[in-house]
Amino acid sequence: MVVAGWLLLAAPSGWQRPNIVMLFVDDLGYGDVGFTGHPTTRTPNIDRLAWNGRVLTTWYSGCPVCSCSRASLLTGRQWSRMGIPGVLGPTIASGMPLNETTVADQLSAAGYATAAVGKWHLGQREAYLPAARGFDEYLGIPYSDDMGEARATPCGNSGMRAPPGRRREDVLAPYVEAGLAPAPSAAERADPAGSFLPLVRQRRGADGRANTTVLEQPLDFSTLSLKYAEFATDFIRTNARRPFFLYMPFSHVHTTTPNQPEKQYCGCDFKNATTRGAFGDALAEVDWTVGRVVEALKAHGVEQNTLVLFTGDNGPWLVQGASGGSTGLLSGRFAGYWNVGKGSTWEGGIREAGFASWPGVIPPFSRSSQVVSSMDLFPTALELAGVPLPSDREYDGKSMLPILLRDEPSAHKMLWFYGGAAGTRKPSAVRYGPFKAHWATGPGLSGCSPGPGAPAGCPTKMYPDVPLLFNVEVDPSEAYALADNNTMPSDAKLQEVIKTLQKAYAEQVERLVPYPSPPAPDAPGEGPGRYGVCCDRSKGCDCDGPPSP
Amino acid sequence: MVVAGWLLLAAPSGWQRPNIVMLFVDDLGYGDVGFTGHPTTRTPNIDRLAWNGRVLTTWYSGCPVCSCSRASLLTGRQWSRMGIPGVLGPTIASGMPLNETTVADQLSAAGYATAAVGKWHLGQREAYLPAARGFDEYLGIPYSDDMGEARATPCGNSGMRAPPGRRREDVLAPYVEAGLAPAPSAAERADPAGSFLPLVRQRRGADGRANTTVLEQPLDFSTLSLKYAEFATDFIRTNARRPFFLYMPFSHVHTTTPNQPEKQYCGCDFKNATTRGAFGDALAEVDWTVGRVVEALKAHGVEQNTLVLFTGDNGPWLVQGASGGSTGLLSGRFAGYWNVGKGSTWEGGIREAGFASWPGVIPPFSRSSQVVSSMDLFPTALELAGVPLPSDREYDGKSMLPILLRDEPSAHKMLWFYGGAAGTRKPSAVRYGPFKAHWATGPGLSGCSPGPGAPAGCPTKMYPDVPLLFNVEVDPSEAYALADNNTMPSDAKLQEVIKTLQKAYAEQVERLVPYPSPPAPDAPGEGPGRYGVCCDRSKGCDCDGPPSP
Repeated sequence: MVVAGWLLLAAPSGWQRPNIVMLFVDDLGYGDVGFTGHPTTRTPNIDRLAWNGRVLTTWYSGCPVCSCSRASLLTGRQWSRMGIPGVLGPTIASGMPLNETTVADQLSAAGYATAAVGKWHLGQREAYLPAARGFDEYLGIPYSDDMGEARATPCGNSGMRAPPGRRREDVLAPYVEAGLAPAPSAAERADPAGSFLPLVRQRRGADGRANTTVLEQPLDFSTLSLKYAEFATDFIRTNARRPFFLYMPFSHVHTTTPNQPEKQYCGCDFKNATTRGAFGDALAEVDWTVGRVVEALKAHGVEQNTLVLFTGDNGPWLVQGASGGSTGLLSGRFAGYWNVGKGSTWEGGIREAGFASWPGVIPPFSRSSQVVSSMDLFPTALELAGVPLPSDREYDGKSMLPILLRDEPSAHKMLWFYGGAAGTRKPSAVRYGPFKAHWATGPGLSGCSPGPGAPAGCPTKMYPDVPLLFNVEVDPSEAYALADNNTMPSDAKLQEVIKTLQKAYAEQVERLVPYPSPPAPDAPGEGPGRYGVCCDRSKGCDCDGPPSP
Repeated sequence: MVVAGWLLLAAPSGWQRPNIVMLFVDDLGYGDVGFTGHPTTRTPNIDRLAWNGRVLTTWYSGCPVCSCSRASLLTGRQWSRMGIPGVLGPTIASGMPLNETTVADQLSAAGYATAAVGKWHLGQREAYLPAARGFDEYLGIPYSDDMGEARATPCGNSGMRAPPGRRREDVLAPYVEAGLAPAPSAAERADPAGSFLPLVRQRRGADGRANTTVLEQPLDFSTLSLKYAEFATDFIRTNARRPFFLYMPFSHVHTTTPNQPEKQYCGCDFKNATTRGAFGDALAEVDWTVGRVVEALKAHGVEQNTLVLFTGDNGPWLVQGASGGSTGLLSGRFAGYWNVGKGSTWEGGIREAGFASWPGVIPPFSRSSQVVSSMDLFPTALELAGVPLPSDREYDGKSMLPILLRDEPSAHKMLWFYGGAAGTRKPSAVRYGPFKAHWATGPGLSGCSPGPGAPAGCPTKMYPDVPLLFNVEVDPSEAYALADNNTMPSDAKLQEVIKTLQKAYAEQVERLVPYPSPPAPDAPGEGPGRYGVCCDRSKGCDCDGPPSP
């Protein structure tokens, strides 16, 4: 079976549009899964999907941090067009601008059933939550799993390390009562403020209006993946007779607040189930959830008609130590830049383990090192659904189908990377054929600030006019610069490459007009102590306030 | 089919002993193949073997450099027991001591057909070459492919970069004649000395004596892999009706002398066949050779009765830049130690991509992170052949079969690593459960010498009494030390681990008595200009001299 783009757009009436499952892991590094070589990670379900499909070894996220990466994924556009900050705080009144259209909006309008389960992070008010952005259903934490506390995992000894922070007594009460935890101290009791993670459930009614419920607050991490898996498999079962889009942005494997042992969590079945520590246990739980989804696809007879895509939102958060992930071989070895995961536009910050699996359509054991981007989900999904790309705005993503189905070259001649050291208004770097060029480099969220007084080993920032140049096909670790010291290389061919890139950079700065700046994190109605989503309205919720202008 | 060790030792007469193919790549890093996540490498044959067998994610080489690693592999013993230097030069009169018995000696005596093809590197005199060490047949370069010059690859423009060194006119003559290369300069003509790589063929006669021929000198790199593949497939065809042992220590992907474009070589079919540059092209040629071997196993009906093992001799030679390999995620990120491939006992120097494949016996898609060592080949092969381990000496290797067949824990309670910064007489490091402890650390063959005057970024050497400690199951990049600064950690469990290791270290230093030091490289009869293996005896060959005492 060969599916061509033009064929889909001119699909015969008997054509059954495929389902799409987007697996999206939080803060997952290129080197964290089995199919990219991690030695002690336990991801057999993910690996088997990867091997039975096409491994995509050059999948770039849309942004090196959380919110902007998700905005790019869901809209097919550079996040800097949307004026959202890299990371939306849990009390922010705004979100992804409402004039953006998501892949769920488009697929829903075309008759797809749509659901999201997991970490949203594109605004916490109801106007910005999934049910307002094209999804029929949602279950999850509306932001990162470290933006509030949760119940401590009550399994094993380490699970009994309880929240050291505020409202510890509330969280611990059942465990104290059962004799499983010490009672909170007087100092702990004296702090009345509470800021707990909510588990939100949404259903879009027939009238298109959202029904939003906070199921738990604080939520229970030890059963969260179980609930995500139930939600996902239930959605597949219910919608097996119509095309569906299931978006699974896992809350794992982002680190949590320190009230969780080792800043990770998992259900008791996964506690110490791997030899990789807390990160490995959390990732094994993701893998289990993926296994449940695959089982459901098989059980309901839709496996052969479902495209499963897998990637992460950004590179690993290296400063979290062993609780964070691994860049794998994307170590950024040039000039001490190795400490460059999440938050940087070095390969380790933006390049992800990825694959596409579609039994009977994508050949098993296949691989491509062609450039794909998370922004490609939007045009890929629309092509599969036979929906034309909206003509009212510019799209930066390209359909992946030529790569997935026919192993063709990438349609990304130049892929620009916003975020990292250049901020929001200009690109930090670009991928061009085998080359990667940097106009702005920094250590990302590495835990040190470059400059005077920086600790030894803290990488410096650089803003060269002659971009720092690597051939990342030959040198994915970015160890051996082809142009450095803000100096044109002597090789004539490289000079040509750099001149082409300098011209293109100037054009890109002109071409892509960033959205006006987002509201500051301390704008009215936002900020610490004013958690938007909560079940106790006496705590100052503003989750049903109007959208931010 | 389940094969148990005791069953093999008490094998019924109808039991057909399995063939063993040992694939052994030179200077291959953990991160260099597809199945360990390299994005642009092209190793489909290797990857498919790996996926259809058990990936062994914790395979340690016997030594971080060439000769000692091979000595360990073939004897099942720590190389420091044998008194060979890490690397035997091409003019050395000695080799692996003749009182050592190799896996080929043992299997040959038990009725196996035995062959070696590729890089030998355990002595160049006939007394030390493969036909004297248990192999019926041999084809290859008796040492590293950078220990002499070869014909330049005559394909494409880059292939016409000709040897800048001595005897350029000899090498280039046919190309000059064909108008494909400029004539050598007067200065080049003025240097009469020649030192060229030989291609050696050996056959052991019925009387046990070797028939040794130098087929080419200088050899032609562009057809070398073709010849290796022909040799290997011919050996499989000829011996398909009896058990055989095929040892394939590839000359690839070690870097060459600079007379080869980009210090790598390959046949013209592989020139620019990958996007990974010269290293990638060379590795693709290895993969093609592996594919030929698999085809031959299938064609002659022995695939189901053949155990194929795959690993490398040591980590990548990072100072060779893009011509060298990749440590993958074993980057040694602690305290700037990232520049630590070959020559160091950091993970990147000794840990290799590895797998075991045996269709119908080893389950497909299986993985183990249990510790295995190249020293395990010897006892594993002997167990499969029903040969008891010799009782006249101590073995450091353990049979891998419990891991391969039954996914059991490793029999290596402590695995000691000799070589690297501690030299030959004491271990540099040890693996103990999840822990890796270092008593001696250095940058390996990183291209810088630590100490006063060292360039910025050159790692320091350390010789702590309280070993530098990592949990390499959680932290395979060795980024987060659990004990550092020669100081006992505060954690009581870690203190216990370190005390256990300190005691074991002292015992190991007592227990393993190193062999007397090897002859110095400039001992009589050895040294530059006295290449042992040559076809022109007027050049001072001593290849048939007596064994070194």
